[in-house]
Amino acid sequence: MAKKFVSMRNLRFLLDEVFNVEELIESTYFDEHNKKTFKMVLDESLKIASKMLHPIFEEMDRKPPELVEGKVKVHPHVKKILREFGKNGWIASSFSYDDGGEQLPLLVANSCNFVFAAANYSASVYSGLCAGAVKLILSFGNKELKEKYAQKMIEGKWQGTMALTEPSAGSSLSDITTSATPDSDGAFKIKGNKIFISAGDHDGVSNVIHLVLAKIDGAPAGVKGISLFVVPKLRINGDNLTSNDVNVTQVFHKLGYRGAPITELSFGEKDNCYGYLVGEEHKGLSYMFQMMNEARLGVGLGATAIASAAYYAALDYTENRVQGRKIGGKDPLSEQIPIIEHSDVKRMLLFQKSIVEGSLSLILQCCKYEDMQQTASEEDKNKYFLLLDLLTPVAKSYPSEMGIESVSQSIQCFGGYGYCEDFPVEQHFRDMRIHPIHEGTTGIQGMDLLGRKLVMHNGKAFFLYLEVVRKTINNVSNSDLKPLALKLEEALKKLEHVTSHLMVLAQTKGPDVFLADSVLYLELFSIVTIAWQWMKQGVTAKEALAKDPSKSEISFYEGKIYAARFFFAYELPKIEGLLVRLTDNDPLTIEMTAKHFID
Amino acid sequence: MAKKFVSMRNLRFLLDEVFNVEELIESTYFDEHNKKTFKMVLDESLKIASKMLHPIFEEMDRKPPELVEGKVKVHPHVKKILREFGKNGWIASSFSYDDGGEQLPLLVANSCNFVFAAANYSASVYSGLCAGAVKLILSFGNKELKEKYAQKMIEGKWQGTMALTEPSAGSSLSDITTSATPDSDGAFKIKGNKIFISAGDHDGVSNVIHLVLAKIDGAPAGVKGISLFVVPKLRINGDNLTSNDVNVTQVFHKLGYRGAPITELSFGEKDNCYGYLVGEEHKGLSYMFQMMNEARLGVGLGATAIASAAYYAALDYTENRVQGRKIGGKDPLSEQIPIIEHSDVKRMLLFQKSIVEGSLSLILQCCKYEDMQQTASEEDKNKYFLLLDLLTPVAKSYPSEMGIESVSQSIQCFGGYGYCEDFPVEQHFRDMRIHPIHEGTTGIQGMDLLGRKLVMHNGKAFFLYLEVVRKTINNVSNSDLKPLALKLEEALKKLEHVTSHLMVLAQTKGPDVFLADSVLYLELFSIVTIAWQWMKQGVTAKEALAKDPSKSEISFYEGKIYAARFFFAYELPKIEGLLVRLTDNDPLTIEMTAKHFID
Repeated sequence: MAKKFVSMRNLRFLLDEVFNVEELIESTYFDEHNKKTFKMVLDESLKIASKMLHPIFEEMDRKPPELVEGKVKVHPHVKKILREFGKNGWIASSFSYDDGGEQLPLLVANSCNFVFAAANYSASVYSGLCAGAVKLILSFGNKELKEKYAQKMIEGKWQGTMALTEPSAGSSLSDITTSATPDSDGAFKIKGNKIFISAGDHDGVSNVIHLVLAKIDGAPAGVKGISLFVVPKLRINGDNLTSNDVNVTQVFHKLGYRGAPITELSFGEKDNCYGYLVGEEHKGLSYMFQMMNEARLGVGLGATAIASAAYYAALDYTENRVQGRKIGGKDPLSEQIPIIEHSDVKRMLLFQKSIVEGSLSLILQCCKYEDMQQTASEEDKNKYFLLLDLLTPVAKSYPSEMGIESVSQSIQCFGGYGYCEDFPVEQHFRDMRIHPIHEGTTGIQGMDLLGRKLVMHNGKAFFLYLEVVRKTINNVSNSDLKPLALKLEEALKKLEHVTSHLMVLAQTKGPDVFLADSVLYLELFSIVTIAWQWMKQGVTAKEALAKDPSKSEISFYEGKIYAARFFFAYELPKIEGLLVRLTDNDPLTIEMTAKHFID
Repeated sequence: MAKKFVSMRNLRFLLDEVFNVEELIESTYFDEHNKKTFKMVLDESLKIASKMLHPIFEEMDRKPPELVEGKVKVHPHVKKILREFGKNGWIASSFSYDDGGEQLPLLVANSCNFVFAAANYSASVYSGLCAGAVKLILSFGNKELKEKYAQKMIEGKWQGTMALTEPSAGSSLSDITTSATPDSDGAFKIKGNKIFISAGDHDGVSNVIHLVLAKIDGAPAGVKGISLFVVPKLRINGDNLTSNDVNVTQVFHKLGYRGAPITELSFGEKDNCYGYLVGEEHKGLSYMFQMMNEARLGVGLGATAIASAAYYAALDYTENRVQGRKIGGKDPLSEQIPIIEHSDVKRMLLFQKSIVEGSLSLILQCCKYEDMQQTASEEDKNKYFLLLDLLTPVAKSYPSEMGIESVSQSIQCFGGYGYCEDFPVEQHFRDMRIHPIHEGTTGIQGMDLLGRKLVMHNGKAFFLYLEVVRKTINNVSNSDLKPLALKLEEALKKLEHVTSHLMVLAQTKGPDVFLADSVLYLELFSIVTIAWQWMKQGVTAKEALAKDPSKSEISFYEGKIYAARFFFAYELPKIEGLLVRLTDNDPLTIEMTAKHFID
């Protein structure tokens, strides 16, 4: 039987009680759904996750993809999984009906994706990558592209990829060199190399459709000269598929996340690779970035899901592992106790709970902002757009960075056993480590938040953020929660203070100094944001407790209050140290040079 | 050519300049050595590390030990390495001449061990385990045991192990069940199972000598009934070795640290396993703990060494990887720059430098206290003993916990490449994760520091600690360093404050509440302690800079000052958050029960 990797109770708590998913169906966009169908979809995702994904969690790690005669061989179940996801509408679940989707709220669709990723992160990315790639075509491609490619990708018969990174252009996308030369029929000849392409090739599909960033000959230098192309592995010639001169030159051997092939690709080695422009010339990066935001949310989601699986593994172990006695009662003849009863173990579990459930709450908050753009008035649309845009780097990086610590604490709960392959947590630890890197490193997220999102539209997004957090604070009436609300208000004031301080720095000392510690600012901002989410969960739990719930429900809600208290007691104070640094004005990382590291 | 994994310049800085190893040779105990021989020994360790250990760093990981027909097969070079270490006196380098050693200061011996561990942690533990085990025999065993076992172990022909942990007794050693039944000739029949025994068996030696904790029939319950035995894999019968009924039942498959076999052993399955008492009955745990302290220092050393190797890998990569441009100069036609020039990358490198060099400094501080017990007057001996005893949990856990973060930041410096097997850092990340677990988890270290070391002899060790740290502070005369000295004094006051607060808590609320957050206290104590070590290094560097050194030396010493400033700016402020929690008195991890986690 599959071990528990997610809490469906917690998902329902967030969806129904905290984020009130039901209010979305009042809008015409979502009105064909109801609470019951949401629950059915969610239950179905757990079934698929338990039956198809989780059983091969270890196997996919132990037998990673291999490059055999130019083709990538993956776990044989990948094909089945992709077809299942295609057949039953999972790939396009949040797409509009017009785009062939189920028009589910992202809140619900991503809750299902969370369940899939928690069951087996590697297995879950194939369909996610299809969805991201096909959405680019549907959003910006012409009719022909849509007709030729979308359906097969939505059905999971063809894999979709996003091909941005090159050997010499990782974080610095402006330096890509893949070229596109105009050819006949509006097609382009593509030439170049891409690396770290997830699901860049595999034998679970009959074709792979790459969404490739490249520069059209003569295009302006830098990001303004980047265009987006559909480059299929196999060209469509009537009913036949023929080689498009796309070759896999390497499958990377990785620390974790080993069930998914990350590949190096060469395009046009024989000058016979064709690509088809998506949208307009030179606008490729802006198209890509609309998908990138969803991809970044997806990374946060995946990180949280892995931490969730590790947390439940630790919970299961600590409930059953008997070791030691209460500190006050060390009689060696007395029975030993389950280690979950030791305060230090509870602290480690609460840490994991607060990270997992706090991160998931933030991600669903972001999903709701996305959904509300479908249902809101024109004026409010922009508000939700800005809030989502502001929170995306937080939702990407906090779960990724803290997820590493959370899984590490899970290992710690197991002691020596956690270090061994007999338990899944060592794999979770390896799988997790990719998240602060892919889809924009934490460093990039820090610059994005402070250098772009904070200052855009004269800080409008930030002011909206302060408003919604304060709204939560002002709604707190329960006397147990008042002290937490006060702490959150204090923290918010500190965030405002440090933000103003940095804005002055930007003007007086320039962008280098301003952005030097943007990762610390991101961390500070993230902690306050997760505290806000715990405040929301605390309020909801207190309201539920006031309604005389059943005994097990009381435990659940009380658990929420403990976790909220934990976050405010152990995690929120971390902003104090960050504040000290962010306001101390010693530009040492700018002054110091490479030679000081060398000896 | 071997890539750089340690800085010999930094080791010499610490040994010669900060810890003045030369002053030790003024004592009769060390007077056969001199600065030149110390340097020769150190240079020799680098040669061996580079030639014998580092080249098989990856190979030992990729081909881990296997259990074949009851015997553990390890990398074929292990035998060569152990013989080399035996032949040239490395195993017993810090032992007294009487014990067959070289009587080297631990400062020097452990600097060499640091070099070995940085080159290849797994390969370095075999000899370390021999040393620990044989030292137990030499310290507490009778003449017969010494004659029979010590020489072969010192020569690296027989492996030594420490066999404490059992399937149901990990952190709770009082619950071990391995039994010892008195037999003829003063021998005991041993029966039981031990797990997680490092180098518990392998084909690089002709015998394995286990130092086993067991309970003599009728012994008192708990830790007071534990005795220590020598239990050889093969019994000595005249010139022959015959089976002693010790069997390997499992070799663990681990996340990392894969070059060393961690085994499960069964003793006396056929009722034919004999053990020989070391020292007196029921005193086994206290004997073991004298070695355990050195073992714990060794864990801190190993963790620091791994972080060192990862740091130099990141340094090498960031100097050579070209990507992006200065924030102020984003002209896409301009040349890209080495990523070490980006402030955020410098921040990540400084973080690693401050952890690695700060931790190493603390470990050498501990070694010096050990050495000074050899050279000091009777009165001072106790002082150094207490300081070492107090600092051991810090020196064990800080490098282990922060080492994970340090290696993680090294991976981050590489971006996607850091996640791939093409570079060594993913292995360092895996190798590192064992350290917060073995030889007493971080949780155990927290309880040891707060519950035992702080309160022993009415807090005498703590008062001595405050004294030595204040001595460092009061010696600061350089005006650039004065602000750091002030910060350290403030931090020390905060540490005193929180310590008093907890002592009151112990009296008013009992041991449960007192110790609930001992891991946080350990973290706070550790950060202050590493700041102290950086203060010392800063003072030394400033003194050296005042002496008109060469250009490259100026860069080295300035690098030290930057790293000290970094630690005070970025790491020391972390105590602020810890202080908030440690004084807020919400006993939530005690109140919360298992049921609150369940849903």
